[in-house]
Amino acid sequence: MYKNINFRTDLADERADIYKKSNNIENNIDGIETQTREDGNIKITEVKITNENGEKAIGKPIGNYITIDINKLKVATDEQIEKYGDILSEELKKLINNHVTKEEDILIVGLGNIYVTPDSLGPKVINEIDVTRHILKYMPEVLEKGTRSVSAISPGVLGTTGIETLEIIIGIIENIHPKLIIVIDALASRSMERISSSIQLADTGIVPGAGVGNTRKEISQKTLNIPVIALGIPTVVESAVLVNDCLNLFIEKLQEEAKSNEYLNQLKEKDNYEEIKEALIPKDYNMIVTPKEIDELIENMKDVVARGINYAM
Amino acid sequence: MYKNINFRTDLADERADIYKKSNNIENNIDGIETQTREDGNIKITEVKITNENGEKAIGKPIGNYITIDINKLKVATDEQIEKYGDILSEELKKLINNHVTKEEDILIVGLGNIYVTPDSLGPKVINEIDVTRHILKYMPEVLEKGTRSVSAISPGVLGTTGIETLEIIIGIIENIHPKLIIVIDALASRSMERISSSIQLADTGIVPGAGVGNTRKEISQKTLNIPVIALGIPTVVESAVLVNDCLNLFIEKLQEEAKSNEYLNQLKEKDNYEEIKEALIPKDYNMIVTPKEIDELIENMKDVVARGINYAM
Amino acid sequence: MYKNINFRTDLADERADIYKKSNNIENNIDGIETQTREDGNIKITEVKITNENGEKAIGKPIGNYITIDINKLKVATDEQIEKYGDILSEELKKLINNHVTKEEDILIVGLGNIYVTPDSLGPKVINEIDVTRHILKYMPEVLEKGTRSVSAISPGVLGTTGIETLEIIIGIIENIHPKLIIVIDALASRSMERISSSIQLADTGIVPGAGVGNTRKEISQKTLNIPVIALGIPTVVESAVLVNDCLNLFIEKLQEEAKSNEYLNQLKEKDNYEEIKEALIPKDYNMIVTPKEIDELIENMKDVVARGINYAM
Amino acid sequence: MYKNINFRTDLADERADIYKKSNNIENNIDGIETQTREDGNIKITEVKITNENGEKAIGKPIGNYITIDINKLKVATDEQIEKYGDILSEELKKLINNHVTKEEDILIVGLGNIYVTPDSLGPKVINEIDVTRHILKYMPEVLEKGTRSVSAISPGVLGTTGIETLEIIIGIIENIHPKLIIVIDALASRSMERISSSIQLADTGIVPGAGVGNTRKEISQKTLNIPVIALGIPTVVESAVLVNDCLNLFIEKLQEEAKSNEYLNQLKEKDNYEEIKEALIPKDYNMIVTPKEIDELIENMKDVVARGINYAM
Repeated sequence: MYKNINFRTDLADERADIYKKSNNIENNIDGIETQTREDGNIKITEVKITNENGEKAIGKPIGNYITIDINKLKVATDEQIEKYGDILSEELKKLINNHVTKEEDILIVGLGNIYVTPDSLGPKVINEIDVTRHILKYMPEVLEKGTRSVSAISPGVLGTTGIETLEIIIGIIENIHPKLIIVIDALASRSMERISSSIQLADTGIVPGAGVGNTRKEISQKTLNIPVIALGIPTVVESAVLVNDCLNLFIEKLQEEAKSNEYLNQLKEKDNYEEIKEALIPKDYNMIVTPKEIDELIENMKDVVARGINYAM
Repeated sequence: MYKNINFRTDLADERADIYKKSNNIENNIDGIETQTREDGNIKITEVKITNENGEKAIGKPIGNYITIDINKLKVATDEQIEKYGDILSEELKKLINNHVTKEEDILIVGLGNIYVTPDSLGPKVINEIDVTRHILKYMPEVLEKGTRSVSAISPGVLGTTGIETLEIIIGIIENIHPKLIIVIDALASRSMERISSSIQLADTGIVPGAGVGNTRKEISQKTLNIPVIALGIPTVVESAVLVNDCLNLFIEKLQEEAKSNEYLNQLKEKDNYEEIKEALIPKDYNMIVTPKEIDELIENMKDVVARGINYAM
Repeated sequence: MYKNINFRTDLADERADIYKKSNNIENNIDGIETQTREDGNIKITEVKITNENGEKAIGKPIGNYITIDINKLKVATDEQIEKYGDILSEELKKLINNHVTKEEDILIVGLGNIYVTPDSLGPKVINEIDVTRHILKYMPEVLEKGTRSVSAISPGVLGTTGIETLEIIIGIIENIHPKLIIVIDALASRSMERISSSIQLADTGIVPGAGVGNTRKEISQKTLNIPVIALGIPTVVESAVLVNDCLNLFIEKLQEEAKSNEYLNQLKEKDNYEEIKEALIPKDYNMIVTPKEIDELIENMKDVVARGINYAM
Repeated sequence: MYKNINFRTDLADERADIYKKSNNIENNIDGIETQTREDGNIKITEVKITNENGEKAIGKPIGNYITIDINKLKVATDEQIEKYGDILSEELKKLINNHVTKEEDILIVGLGNIYVTPDSLGPKVINEIDVTRHILKYMPEVLEKGTRSVSAISPGVLGTTGIETLEIIIGIIENIHPKLIIVIDALASRSMERISSSIQLADTGIVPGAGVGNTRKEISQKTLNIPVIALGIPTVVESAVLVNDCLNLFIEKLQEEAKSNEYLNQLKEKDNYEEIKEALIPKDYNMIVTPKEIDELIENMKDVVARGINYAM
């Protein structure tokens, strides 16, 4: 019997790694196919969950999960940003083509709060999307024949609207009938290294705010009856995660210096996240943190994602 | 028979004035009751259209129209902004109470584009609304009994969403069932003097973009089946309107200096708006203009309106 | 004797045109050389004032004046923006090389108010400049040998600092000793057509706020003792200018329709700017206006100018 | 002999506490007078360093240090923000009056980068200062007799200007000759709890960026020859500080649950900051972090500080 794991990460590739390590599995997990490609600064990891075994193993529904890792986005040039956008576009196109034909309607949904910088990626991308739905409706003659109908919306967040995002999306779908939805969200990352440097694509939907502990209603084919591609980018990290990561690095350093002891070694072996989290709560330290340069990172990410989506349409 | 008039203003009080002048009416128009109050810097004009005669006369549906004129908003102190907000709140409360009880659900809709300063009033106000709907749903115990359910949304504009605002609102209403809607919109004004210094309240709904010549679908009880209060603030002016206004001022000055002539006097008597507009089109001069300090005016207006709405709830 | 002209434009090329028309000059004006080149969407006009005659004729000091006219900046693609930046860079480089060697220090000064959209171009460009002065000072080894020292500052505006811009610049120059200054400013235009579609370069300095009627102290070699290149972009227009332009268009239309008369024809011949201005003052209509899409125009202009300067360094 | 301490905090009150604890001092330290007052939500701590003994003890120059602690700024109402501003104003006035007369010139300097949210406090406050210097110079008749000359500047940061802030300030002082300078800066805090909830006033100047490890040149009476009041607000925290704080909380929890051991107890006794910092460096984890709601906290802080300064003038 395999161990029950609290993954604490949304990334399917990280989950697969953790699962294999925990269970000492050398080869592939049954029901999970993993592939990695590299291209310059960029690593693309594809995880395909093909059956219920795979589903159970890493706690993610059957479907495709693609992670694009971009390093050094903070110092990216215009040319690099364009290249990243083009790579994203390629991957996105493949996922879209799995689910709809070239002309079927797509609705892009940008989750998040435009007034909170680390949460503003979704609304900012929406502003850059080349929408065509209204032109097809009112002036079809100015567009090439066969242009796909694209619409885009930024529904806001529960805290400022008072309305569940899912309720808003359902309402819109019932009126405009898209065939596929792409949801963009800023995620809470489980690792400082991933902040603004990973893009995750999945054709299995999203639970907004899942990372931040404010679970909202799932946005997926199950709740919407049409396929949902989620495009998520980590922009914040929980302080308990940061401390847990750092505690391990610190103990490692003590071990290297032969200053560690049995107890610390054990501490490192087990996962202290829950206990750290509890220790921080009374002090209100259990906050979300984000790097100081988040404004610039978000701007660059917005350019990458907007280009990726526009070119994929 | 009365003259057919192209009013070229959304303000019911201006229309009533124009109608009376054009038709040499001394007293009240049948079906229209007008009242004016003053309070310091602030003038409040109330126009009530009570029957079909009134409706036909000024081309506005039966209902209540209130205009609050604030001078010198550009140089308003914090204390003045609070006072303006309180006055708006009073007027708004009266209109709301005509249509719903104290506890019935209200949805606030902020029209406009957050990325275009003169069009950003609606979305900016939405961010300041004290929404309660989600708290009543998930943690009712933290609110006083009898708190009204308030939700708020910024649906974006057709050019960036590809979706008619009306379609989005209908979708949301079908899912959350409010009993009244308040729509906030930045208007194109027919007069430079009104820019960011008038607030118009009407319980007859709104046609977004009407002022700007991009008529969208009407948002009103007729299209939504629930009462709609429109809160509109002029923030831009058409260049043809500006020129028409100024041409008259210029001819007046020539007349005073006895430099005018028969022809100019006639020019002033008639309305040259349509001809000026046509003259400007080929040069692409027929643009919308806005004062240089619009950023500051919008900030102040946002504070007035947000306070006005929050206190009225 | 030639006519005395109130040019009411900062553009040397417009002044030369007006002067020639007013004085019925067919060929070149003595002391003024004019050249025009075209390149796709872009027209470049070069005016060289070579002696005192030229100086007197159009009321501009001896020096070089280059105007780059870009059409359709509002709808420019990323590729076009990069191309415009490259063209600006070429012209700027020529001017710089007239005055300093390849390694001499340059200080970039961005005039204007970051909080007033149409006046925010200067500060926004400054944020994008690749400064090197501090790196040359503290870590010269990371830069190629021969890298030029570039520094950049946004001194703010008199209304928010209480300090004349010239005083701030003099103070900085005395401490860091650049050999050339490039000043970026948003100008008041004398024509709606030029708004955010012309870039003017001049190696004779600038009078900030000159267009807006708030004349500040001149920033030029005369006041600073080092050469000053001014890069100016029209972003606002006076309402009296707009009305004057439009009045002429309107009368033209009346003439075409044979509805004009002797008096109107005369009105069109003469310049009514001063009288229109006076007519508008009592109504406080004499404001600065700016197009509704100014936010987007400024963003695009910022990208063009930042690229132009960075590549010229 | 007293222990040598690495204080790792800029707050004089924290340093005095640490010093007394480390050296088991019960009463006052010689050369240091400390006073604490409370007023509702607000605690004011005044530390006066009166001689060289005090100076050596806590490594801060002779002078006055005042810390105003505001809790719950994130959820402050308009009325609370006004109250906080008034309290700041009172404290600031006392410090100012120690150094200049009621009419002597003051220059306000807002350090930081407007484009990096947690570093934007200084520039944002500058935009709200009621400057008078230019009015006294050009239209003195519109001001009351005896109005103080106030000017304000946002010099930018070394990374975007290429110029040391001290060089810019010296240049301006030489040209406008103020008698006192107030410098506003966003600080790196040594404690998550202090973020955006403490205001520190000191009449001994400031070293910009000191908290962040990018030490810039000191801005003080020593370098400027006029008194300098520093107003600092913690807005970010080093990740090593966060981890160190949290590690201690975590060990405390283990101790309470009797899960700790000798080694962990020792770990808690000593200061692990340096070792944690080293452990994080190779992973590039040694970043600055800031809470997710920093946009809102900065807005509220800006309102408090602007009101505090304007009322103190």
